[in-house]
Amino acid sequence: MPDVQASRDHRRIAIDKVGVKHIRYPITLHCPITGGVQHTVARVNMYVGLPHYQKGTHMSRFLEVLNKHHDELRADQIMRVCEDMRKRLAAEEAHLELNFPYFIHKKAPVTHATGMIDIEVSFEAHTSARRDNGRKVGHDFVMGLKVPATSLCPCSKEISLYGAHNQRCEIQAKVRFAPGQHLWIEELFDIVEKAASTQVFAVLKRPDEKWVTEAAYDNPKFVEDIVRDLAVVLDKEDRIRWYQINSENYESIHNHNAYAFIEKDKRVSGRDVGDA
Amino acid sequence: MPDVQASRDHRRIAIDKVGVKHIRYPITLHCPITGGVQHTVARVNMYVGLPHYQKGTHMSRFLEVLNKHHDELRADQIMRVCEDMRKRLAAEEAHLELNFPYFIHKKAPVTHATGMIDIEVSFEAHTSARRDNGRKVGHDFVMGLKVPATSLCPCSKEISLYGAHNQRCEIQAKVRFAPGQHLWIEELFDIVEKAASTQVFAVLKRPDEKWVTEAAYDNPKFVEDIVRDLAVVLDKEDRIRWYQINSENYESIHNHNAYAFIEKDKRVSGRDVGDA
Amino acid sequence: MPDVQASRDHRRIAIDKVGVKHIRYPITLHCPITGGVQHTVARVNMYVGLPHYQKGTHMSRFLEVLNKHHDELRADQIMRVCEDMRKRLAAEEAHLELNFPYFIHKKAPVTHATGMIDIEVSFEAHTSARRDNGRKVGHDFVMGLKVPATSLCPCSKEISLYGAHNQRCEIQAKVRFAPGQHLWIEELFDIVEKAASTQVFAVLKRPDEKWVTEAAYDNPKFVEDIVRDLAVVLDKEDRIRWYQINSENYESIHNHNAYAFIEKDKRVSGRDVGDA
Amino acid sequence: MPDVQASRDHRRIAIDKVGVKHIRYPITLHCPITGGVQHTVARVNMYVGLPHYQKGTHMSRFLEVLNKHHDELRADQIMRVCEDMRKRLAAEEAHLELNFPYFIHKKAPVTHATGMIDIEVSFEAHTSARRDNGRKVGHDFVMGLKVPATSLCPCSKEISLYGAHNQRCEIQAKVRFAPGQHLWIEELFDIVEKAASTQVFAVLKRPDEKWVTEAAYDNPKFVEDIVRDLAVVLDKEDRIRWYQINSENYESIHNHNAYAFIEKDKRVSGRDVGDA
Repeated sequence: MPDVQASRDHRRIAIDKVGVKHIRYPITLHCPITGGVQHTVARVNMYVGLPHYQKGTHMSRFLEVLNKHHDELRADQIMRVCEDMRKRLAAEEAHLELNFPYFIHKKAPVTHATGMIDIEVSFEAHTSARRDNGRKVGHDFVMGLKVPATSLCPCSKEISLYGAHNQRCEIQAKVRFAPGQHLWIEELFDIVEKAASTQVFAVLKRPDEKWVTEAAYDNPKFVEDIVRDLAVVLDKEDRIRWYQINSENYESIHNHNAYAFIEKDKRVSGRDVGDA
Repeated sequence: MPDVQASRDHRRIAIDKVGVKHIRYPITLHCPITGGVQHTVARVNMYVGLPHYQKGTHMSRFLEVLNKHHDELRADQIMRVCEDMRKRLAAEEAHLELNFPYFIHKKAPVTHATGMIDIEVSFEAHTSARRDNGRKVGHDFVMGLKVPATSLCPCSKEISLYGAHNQRCEIQAKVRFAPGQHLWIEELFDIVEKAASTQVFAVLKRPDEKWVTEAAYDNPKFVEDIVRDLAVVLDKEDRIRWYQINSENYESIHNHNAYAFIEKDKRVSGRDVGDA
Repeated sequence: MPDVQASRDHRRIAIDKVGVKHIRYPITLHCPITGGVQHTVARVNMYVGLPHYQKGTHMSRFLEVLNKHHDELRADQIMRVCEDMRKRLAAEEAHLELNFPYFIHKKAPVTHATGMIDIEVSFEAHTSARRDNGRKVGHDFVMGLKVPATSLCPCSKEISLYGAHNQRCEIQAKVRFAPGQHLWIEELFDIVEKAASTQVFAVLKRPDEKWVTEAAYDNPKFVEDIVRDLAVVLDKEDRIRWYQINSENYESIHNHNAYAFIEKDKRVSGRDVGDA
Repeated sequence: MPDVQASRDHRRIAIDKVGVKHIRYPITLHCPITGGVQHTVARVNMYVGLPHYQKGTHMSRFLEVLNKHHDELRADQIMRVCEDMRKRLAAEEAHLELNFPYFIHKKAPVTHATGMIDIEVSFEAHTSARRDNGRKVGHDFVMGLKVPATSLCPCSKEISLYGAHNQRCEIQAKVRFAPGQHLWIEELFDIVEKAASTQVFAVLKRPDEKWVTEAAYDNPKFVEDIVRDLAVVLDKEDRIRWYQINSENYESIHNHNAYAFIEKDKRVSGRDVGDA
């Protein structure tokens, strides 16, 4: 049977990424707190670089790699899976991306009623056999979290006789770790969640609802404050060497959202913060 | 060229709806206030009933009907378009559905700064040549609106020393008109929007933000209150003979939503509201 | 602490459904084939009816019911959960809806390479303590599947010298079971999938790709044929007493979709299929 | 009334982007072919950079800028709007993003039946008053198109006795123009659409359906071929100095997609295409 994909291409155009996208796949993650596991369902993208002289990649091999490693699709193993995919596809570069809901157990602040909060987690793994100026490009891993929380507007509180508009917000943090370091999803979640006016919960009894209402009012934050307060903490966290953070606030007084975004690579000279 | 669709089918199974779905199409609506027009982009679904003995419908004719009537896709003409579609497809029944964003001009409550609020509008037209017990089924038209607004929680206000959680909500109303009657989109919008704790706006200067913050705090409503207050007004509106309403509140203290739903056909004997 | 929700309402308007919507929640289902379990993540809606004289429902109780029954959110237990929710909320009626991805293990047709297909499953449970004309309304359960497959156009095949346009389609079936009967997800999946031109697979090696390509070409089906062939099988399946089926074909030659829909309650007198 | 936003911030953290997101807004574009206009509805994002010493931006001003320039939200004016936004917000940097459906009139290949194809267009404008090493950063504009088309698999055609799987694909091209140059949406659309196996149409009569079926079969393309053939044409197009292209093919034989991606900045030394 002819192998069209393996035939020679003459257009002399290499392809940065080619592969399979939007695969839905069940995965199992290890939970540092309980020592148990958590089952969830991911969306998976798998790509390799294709050299200019090859007509096509072999799409079915991506799925075979995925099935072979179905129980290793977690942060501490994903680079091995990505590397195996690179080799199986005979490629110089490989990209493996996962997005999935993850559940965090939380107790209500007063009654301690138990519940779970669902967050969005992403893993982006990239491995390369290329050399840039003789230096191996190697591995790259980005972990991302999207965390729901509450924001309460400082301006609305300040100018109003009573009340203050507040709303659900989604705070996203993508991070690269310092060499040899890492954070658990639960650790990064704790950092991110604290940047908001207050946290959200699944189960809130009336004493809890009173608590979160007052907590939010006591801690008003603009969307700018959320990303800045998060940046302050991430700047001090030595296990993180790069971050990209944003908050999107679903304003209760508008039909559009407020948004703020900061990116920082700590290895590059700091931000220019010359006086005004 | 053979016409496969027109051939005879022997499975003896009629099809309730067959046609084209998820067509994106530009439409033009007449604006009762300015006397001008509003341009927007709709998602369109077009279906007919197919008798048991016909193998297939003629899909391209749906698009031809749409193109022929491209400037009549508005509430007062849509039944004519639906009827023409029914005839062009030689069908007993026809369904035409449109969903589109629509813009309402609104002034901020204090500074009167101008802006637009985007709502979602749906038209569902159905026409039939069938007779049920000798009586013509005829026409059916449902108009729907999805309106953003603000809800503020009465419980949170009552139990907290200060503040109250509030959030954006989306209130949906679908209505059937009494014979010979109708409401403009703008008229139904006014009714729906008033059911919330307060309205949302595109442009709010600080005096406006103070106003909406205090207005929401002065008018706390559960999701139950929103649909009930809306039902009270729709019950009194004689131009409406049937409604289906709901509100979905994007709770600022949870990562899930609060929801309430009421349906009422005024021609049917009223709700059973016997005492508790 | 005051219980605002429990206070008396004077608008005399009952609410059909009130509760929580769009909760993301991990669930575990039993697998009839392996005897093992399958873990997945659902979207959950939980509603009750609210009598006219009660101001509000108690939202946190829905989550408590969900957490209490977290390992019973499966077809054979869901009615019990729904019933418990109805009682916990002191309501006459309760509605519990789950939507989740589910994975079916399938072997490629020639090489028998293994892989999983993801489908969408829905459970809709409804329980009522109401009596209609002295008769208990009781329980209602609807199971739904959305299954990806391939459709190949008979008209395109017939009129073209070679080739035929084909595309992914999504076939949806919602069913109610006859008293005391049920089908496993896997059983209904098998029925639904067979209605298409051919099946889709996760892993296809070249001999498999040849097989599915030729199989689709040998079995051309309009969107009308898919729903009709499915209806024929469901009509004969005595464990099913009601169905609602549709297919949406993502036409490869258009930027819109073809769609067909049939609903049938077998207890009602059959369709009118009088001769043409 | 206090201006909280204008107060001084002491965290010494500048914000890359802050503003409003996901505004829905009607826009009017000029059509080069008819000389007329096209009305559509955009999603709009507006951001500015915020210096470290300023607590917050003034969100309402974004909407005021948008309303002031409501009839200039088109490719040839958007940079002026972006620049005005930057000044109105007293910022060094400003970002203005629009995404909207756009309609292209097309005639069927044989019968010349008329219809419209809807594509997705994006404008991303960025203006900066910053200087990098004394050199003004200035303006940046990226235009993007997402175009539906048909792809037919060369492998499936080659190995099968008859038929070949084909499917709808979406080809995306984002481009930066050479100084003083530009392409109309219609011009870039023509380039992108030609890269597929064949085009999609709104209205296809039977002679047209025969034509597109055979045209696709005569022109099989992997997802790799689509992006490579598009790259070849964009490489030769001197009005374009940078591009990012991808194709996502909704495989009719799988429930996941095939994907390929190429990015090229022509000002940078060409791709390394050393022999194998």
